[in-house]
This record gives sequence, C-alpha cells and structure tokens, in this order.
Amino acid sequence: MEYTPAPLVKAAEQFARLPGIGMKTAQRLAYHILSLPTETVREFSEGVLSARESVHFCDRCQNFTSVKSVFEPANVVTGSHNDILCPICEDTARRNSRTICVVESPRDVSVFERTGGFDGVYHVLHGLLSPMDGTRPEDIRVKELMERLSGDVDEVIMATNPTIEGEATAAYVGRLVKAVGIKVTRLAYGLPAGAALEFADDVTLTRALENRNEL
Amino acid sequence: MEYTPAPLVKAAEQFARLPGIGMKTAQRLAYHILSLPTETVREFSEGVLSARESVHFCDRCQNFTSVKSVFEPANVVTGSHNDILCPICEDTARRNSRTICVVESPRDVSVFERTGGFDGVYHVLHGLLSPMDGTRPEDIRVKELMERLSGDVDEVIMATNPTIEGEATAAYVGRLVKAVGIKVTRLAYGLPAGAALEFADDVTLTRALENRNEL
Repeated sequence: MEYTPAPLVKAAEQFARLPGIGMKTAQRLAYHILSLPTETVREFSEGVLSARESVHFCDRCQNFTSVKSVFEPANVVTGSHNDILCPICEDTARRNSRTICVVESPRDVSVFERTGGFDGVYHVLHGLLSPMDGTRPEDIRVKELMERLSGDVDEVIMATNPTIEGEATAAYVGRLVKAVGIKVTRLAYGLPAGAALEFADDVTLTRALENRNEL
Repeated sequence: MEYTPAPLVKAAEQFARLPGIGMKTAQRLAYHILSLPTETVREFSEGVLSARESVHFCDRCQNFTSVKSVFEPANVVTGSHNDILCPICEDTARRNSRTICVVESPRDVSVFERTGGFDGVYHVLHGLLSPMDGTRPEDIRVKELMERLSGDVDEVIMATNPTIEGEATAAYVGRLVKAVGIKVTRLAYGLPAGAALEFADDVTLTRALENRNEL
C-alpha cells in the first residue's frame, strides 16, 4: 500500500484494533475520517481519550464512574476514606445497599438500570471465569465483592450471562458468598418475553417447564 | 443514562458519528475503550487525529497524500510551484501520465493499484453527481480534472461505479472531456469473474451479451 499515505494506514490499523472492526471496515473509517473537517476529528479524538482518562472505577461496586464526582460535595459526605463512588453507590437514600446484584460488565449495569425494576446496588466483576481464556478468580473482582460482604448485606444476586462461563462464575462466586452465610440467588431461567415456543431451544424449554409458576 | 459517566456517553456519541456504526455498537466500542490501557487509547486517539492533520490532497490528482513528502527532495524537483504530489503523480518514470483514470474516491485508487494492471495516473472526484443529494458538478473535483487536460493527455478512463450516480457522472464528465478533443473510455460491463450465470441480474447479462468478444 505504498500509494496510501502512512498516517492513513496507521489510522486504519488503530480502528482495526477495536472489537468487531475488521481491516476492511477500518480502512473505510480511516478514509471517512479524512473527509471530515479537522475540528470534527479533533472532537472525536479528544472525546475518546477523555473518556478513558476521566472515567475511573467506583471504589465500591467497581462500575465505571466519572472521576469528577470526587470533588463534588455529596461525595465528600458519603465517602468514608474519600472513596470515589458511582452515582448508584452514592445514592443511599433511594438504593437498597443490602442487595447486591453481581454482573459481568458495566454494560450489564446499564441493562438492569434501563428496566428500572431493581433498587439494589451492583458489583461488576469485569470478566468471567474461563479456563479456556485463562481467566482465574484473581483476574476478576471477586476479592472486592468479598470485602463488601463484611457490611450489612442480605442477598447477593448472581446476574452473569446464562453461558458456560457465566454459569461457572455464578457457581464459584455463589459458593464463596454462601460460605459467609449470605443468601445467594440466580436470575430465573425461562422463555424470553414475546418468544415463540417452537423456536425455544431444549435447555430453555426444559428449564421453563421445571421452574413453572402457579397462576 | 445518568448512571453512565458523561465522558463515556460522549465517547459513544463520537463513535456513533462514524459511518456504519449505530448507537449500540458505539456503546460497545466506548466500553471497550475504557478497558484498554490509557496509553493504547492515546495511541488510537493520536493516530486518528494525525491522519487527518498530516494527510492532504495531491495537487494534481486530488488523491490523499502525506504532506511530509513536500519536504522531500524528490518533490522539490518535480513540483513546478512547490505542489504537493502523491507518490503516483510523482513517479513520472514508471507512470504514464497521458492516461488518466477518473474515480470517485481515494479508496478506488487503492482498488486499482491492488490489481497492479494500470500504469497510468488517477483523478479523484471526491464524490459523484447526485441530484437527490444535491451534489452538483462544482461540488466534486471536475474543474481540477479539466485543468489537467491542458497538458499532454491521450485518454481519460471514466472508472466510476456502475450505479445511477456513477453512470450520470461518467456521462457528464465524459462529455466535457470529449469536448476538449480527448478520447474518453468507460470501464467494461459484463459478468464478474467467478460468477454464476443464474445469479446475474438482467442488466448485467444483457450487457455481457451485447459486449461479447470473439474467441
């Protein structure tokens, strides 16, 4: 590609490092960048970098949070050791901190918050146990969860995905939590809303039947 | 999304401005960015911005070229008015500048170069005429093409896409070029290599029949 300017190739390589973006799409994006006004590209570039630089982990639930909130008065009151807390952990008035919902990633927090049906708090593991990928318990935030359990906690909901890794992680972490004497629950299995029976897989159907509820 | 840090939302919005990236993918990319080391994100951010800042248009063919080459000795010799020239226009030894291949975008130059079968030079229009989108002749680089024709040019190949806009642009620009007394050609239509006859559309099949060659 000697006829393609080196910075263009480099930009395409950068795009290709993002998940789900192959070399073809990356090249298309790089060419698109060149067709934009420099100011727009600068906004893009700075927006992405500033997201990485200004977003930190909540010291309690490990979810992403904007670091700015440390300097806000509300936090100084809440945080015992000047902890950086996310808006959910900070909101002790409306959030029941005795129920912890354990999820794989910050995205899952957004998903639950979207439903508006959960008033507890979260714990983000930032990964799942996976012998295949070599992810061990010390690679995800299990230790941080266990430390939280020394406070007043009634229930820990294992809300990892219903995949092999999600199940294994729920089982492993659930066992640790149970050992401390705290109630552990798992998300219900069953038919997704609006689904057609004929398209449900066998495992889902079997579980939906097993866990049937009285009307 | 008050539970999502503002910089994260902003980064997602920036990604969503790229072509072919919806809000869902943009959010996924933004979350991914946060999981990367700051240094990696900085490389990404700077790679993209520097592509926009350091890549300019070739003063002759309007293709993208790295501005760095202005300061290289080769260019000072070639460029009459200190023009910024791309490597293809600069390479007068191996490139036949009497044949100009007119394409829609810099990507198309890459496509032709990949085949290695063309030794002429290019002219990038940076768009196609489109009454629907309001793209008029003065919005694409037709004027720049006409200025090049005052030199020694034998043939102009209209190599725009075989779409409605591509055809209209080829017809319009072709007429202008012909008026100056220069030979104009258009890419051949026919069956794509490796295609099955039964899947060819009617227009393609009709043209393949019309333009049949003697064996």
